[in-house]
Amino acid sequence: MKLIAIETAAEACSAALYLSGDISIRYKILPRGHSELILEMVDDLLREANLTPASLDAVAFGRGPGSFTGVRIATGVIQGIAFAADLPVVGVSTLAALAQRAYREKGERKLLTAFDARMGELYWAGYRVGEKELAVPAIPEQVGSPQQVEIPHDDEWYGVGSGWGAYSEQLEQRLRGTLLGFKAEIYCSARDIASLAAADYQAGLAVAPEHALPVYLRNQVANKL
Amino acid sequence: MKLIAIETAAEACSAALYLSGDISIRYKILPRGHSELILEMVDDLLREANLTPASLDAVAFGRGPGSFTGVRIATGVIQGIAFAADLPVVGVSTLAALAQRAYREKGERKLLTAFDARMGELYWAGYRVGEKELAVPAIPEQVGSPQQVEIPHDDEWYGVGSGWGAYSEQLEQRLRGTLLGFKAEIYCSARDIASLAAADYQAGLAVAPEHALPVYLRNQVANKL
Repeated sequence: MKLIAIETAAEACSAALYLSGDISIRYKILPRGHSELILEMVDDLLREANLTPASLDAVAFGRGPGSFTGVRIATGVIQGIAFAADLPVVGVSTLAALAQRAYREKGERKLLTAFDARMGELYWAGYRVGEKELAVPAIPEQVGSPQQVEIPHDDEWYGVGSGWGAYSEQLEQRLRGTLLGFKAEIYCSARDIASLAAADYQAGLAVAPEHALPVYLRNQVANKL
Repeated sequence: MKLIAIETAAEACSAALYLSGDISIRYKILPRGHSELILEMVDDLLREANLTPASLDAVAFGRGPGSFTGVRIATGVIQGIAFAADLPVVGVSTLAALAQRAYREKGERKLLTAFDARMGELYWAGYRVGEKELAVPAIPEQVGSPQQVEIPHDDEWYGVGSGWGAYSEQLEQRLRGTLLGFKAEIYCSARDIASLAAADYQAGLAVAPEHALPVYLRNQVANKL
């Protein structure tokens, strides 16, 4: 099973090549220029493995939520690659991918991921990591103010993502007694998009290129600006 | 010479197939959903001509200015197709393509194209259609208020584009004595992107996929939102 994953929705621009469980990665944190960089990363990974796009089984992308522009870049590029190389696409939640990364690096299994959504709001969701070592949704993705964050109080969670930098005080107060700790400076990576996408692909969740669409959570930005 | 062109920067979503001078087109005016529609249009055109992406010589896109989201969609999709099919890319100004359409439909040869850029501004430029029947820049692309529009008063121009709907009074007053008339309800089409791109391709102006980038004119929106 061979798959390329790309991620440009937030601070980091990254691409990963998944080859039967092994993952190679290109990853760079930069505020802009993802559009110039992402194809080079993919090209680099494919050349290194002596592969062409058409020899892959699928492609995957971080489908949001996140930076409006960033999500748009990944969506367009992956649509184009998938169309031209005749490949199915797996769209992976960037919130899920961040939970996966937090599990991979910190071993935490109950994760509240939150991105700063500006305008006083955050994108957030809850995940549990089960036996298959993969982040599975526990609280659905949503957008709202820190005051709107509601989680079951019978469990303990670890917080990750830029939302924990922007709204740490409000969130800590809100989750008192249920929060083990948090880390704000941790970004979504194509490595975790690739792991989650590989599982989704095996589960039959890949779609045709024209159905590879962004998920913004905020309705108003889904209109063409 | 075979080329696919796409255009999603404004009200219309369109794709065109250029085959040695003949152009086939898919064109639809819709406020959103360009991301869902554009690949279907390209697929349709290629199937009809019994072609694959890899059998083309190049791909082209409306690289802006225009709707921020729309320009992003076209850029990402064309980058992906070009990368996977190993094709060079021609980026065409949407203002130039609109001038080309206005010439094609109305026969006018001196065109002031202007898009409504919101925030009290417009994107505008001037074109002349020469012997080769192609729109050539006469006044560089720029963004500014209607009051900032300055054109040589020794010539007569025809105005086209949404900017002439939003700011017709201001523009008419500003261009008194140099304006032959205007038409606001005329949109950029992939047909004209294709004609201009074919000429640019012959002139050696195609670039590698990673250098196919949007042109917003407004600096601030080039930062990642």
